[in-house]
Amino acid sequence: MYFAGIDIGGMSIKIGLVSSEGKLIVSRAIPTNHDLGYEDMIRRSSELISELCKEANISTSKIKGIGVGIPGTADSSTGIATSAVNIGWKNTPVSEEFSKYFDVPIIISNDANCAALGEQKFGSGAGYQNLIFITLGTGVGSGIIIDGKLVEGVSCAGAESGHMVIQVDGELCNCGRCGCWECYASATALIKQTKAAMQANPYSKLHAVGRKYGKVTGRTAFLAAQDGDDVAQSVVDKYIKYIATGLINLANIIHPEAFIIGGGISHEGDYLMKPLQQFMDNNFFASGMYPTVKTICATLGNNAGIIGAAALVM
Amino acid sequence: MYFAGIDIGGMSIKIGLVSSEGKLIVSRAIPTNHDLGYEDMIRRSSELISELCKEANISTSKIKGIGVGIPGTADSSTGIATSAVNIGWKNTPVSEEFSKYFDVPIIISNDANCAALGEQKFGSGAGYQNLIFITLGTGVGSGIIIDGKLVEGVSCAGAESGHMVIQVDGELCNCGRCGCWECYASATALIKQTKAAMQANPYSKLHAVGRKYGKVTGRTAFLAAQDGDDVAQSVVDKYIKYIATGLINLANIIHPEAFIIGGGISHEGDYLMKPLQQFMDNNFFASGMYPTVKTICATLGNNAGIIGAAALVM
Repeated sequence: MYFAGIDIGGMSIKIGLVSSEGKLIVSRAIPTNHDLGYEDMIRRSSELISELCKEANISTSKIKGIGVGIPGTADSSTGIATSAVNIGWKNTPVSEEFSKYFDVPIIISNDANCAALGEQKFGSGAGYQNLIFITLGTGVGSGIIIDGKLVEGVSCAGAESGHMVIQVDGELCNCGRCGCWECYASATALIKQTKAAMQANPYSKLHAVGRKYGKVTGRTAFLAAQDGDDVAQSVVDKYIKYIATGLINLANIIHPEAFIIGGGISHEGDYLMKPLQQFMDNNFFASGMYPTVKTICATLGNNAGIIGAAALVM
Repeated sequence: MYFAGIDIGGMSIKIGLVSSEGKLIVSRAIPTNHDLGYEDMIRRSSELISELCKEANISTSKIKGIGVGIPGTADSSTGIATSAVNIGWKNTPVSEEFSKYFDVPIIISNDANCAALGEQKFGSGAGYQNLIFITLGTGVGSGIIIDGKLVEGVSCAGAESGHMVIQVDGELCNCGRCGCWECYASATALIKQTKAAMQANPYSKLHAVGRKYGKVTGRTAFLAAQDGDDVAQSVVDKYIKYIATGLINLANIIHPEAFIIGGGISHEGDYLMKPLQQFMDNNFFASGMYPTVKTICATLGNNAGIIGAAALVM
């Protein structure tokens, strides 16, 4: 028994066939080209599913469901993507369109929700019934699972934890509010914080690291800090405090068993996770009295979206 | 069929008999006197249940369950109050102790959770399966209901939304962190903000209102603002912005159908609720694209705790 997982992004659509044990059998990406319209995107995606079946020598009749991760809000009860600005979708009947090609259950959800589900079922969140998945990338995304179920909110517009204000009247966010967590804890924010530190500290090793890699990235401060640079270390410390602030807020509100941390920044591994866990242990409400909330690195990487989308229909 | 609801507070224990339709038949309060120990508190509470039955002419055999609201964390699965600092409880076997007096189901939960459940079943939250109850009182308490079920979190330590940081490095909170929502949006915070405005503005009407009522309270700024005082109005505006900041954060994370607002400050009615709703409508993530989250005044008042505790066992 196999399931197709589709992870739609602004640049590419990633599609894979996934076994009921969560193993990714085969996968490929095609350009999104959303300007050609959703019907075209879904036709090409459906064709790719058939091609992948041939490639893996799996009869299409063995595909028992299709799950689709949407880069926006998606109403899983109706199969309609209510809004996905980056690919120009608004009230797009995704499930209906896919059902023209496949007569199997088709379920859609937000892409961060899919990744959360993927990690919970087949990744580093396996065994937890209550977890929050956080991606630290261009923005800060999240997926919340309580009692083994995704918390999607009314109109499936929930789990926008990146747009929790942690600094009233703070930095202006793309969403229009000021001081959102995303403005302080995303990779984008870290790059901004790193550049500001470089400007203020012309002799910091941050400059050498930036030159070595051709540009300032989310890794620059971590690398220079590991090389003993104090300025870089203080950038990293402050950044980790920002991440932890949002995590502790979520812990106080929902108190999950674990946070699963994904996205580009999670590749820093222990340099990120150890201080983050320490900050969490020391600062969450009534810490010491309750079991701590574990912070764990995501393990499915870029495949979390595909595997999680497939998990929607399992 | 009747249920006993017990709302334990630092000063008094409020007990009532509640019908299965959520009607409070009879109720009374006794002093908490927690220094006499939990066995004594529970013995006296049990005796009062029997007395109330006599008073209402209800046979104790008709009491089909006892629900208990705890001013702290309470593990509903074990019946143990893990921590309630104000009454000196730690790992207190509440259900076990009550079962010495009554052979009926006994369920315990946090007091704000009880109030949330009371409002959801029999108050202004009736009809909503997804809501967040917020009390604006000495602190900021909360209870979260998703799909008709209380979200208690691991060890039932969740729903501490008052301890969500909205201002990194902001005011020092009793919990040890800085910048918690409670430090800005509680009645205690409003009094502090009002006093600061009075000190800075000796000619504001805030002084006259304070004198008239003998002291500065959570009402002072609202009353002076209604009397046309600009300073008071700006205190109220800023305070409402703080409340709304936390509500919008919760809306972005969980996206419930409604917020039910209780606690002393909720008595300001439209003067509080109308601007709060407006702020919410204009500022939550992707507002305009999704149904707004309604902000509604709680209606059960001080009885929410008793009725909600009884609702635990219905």
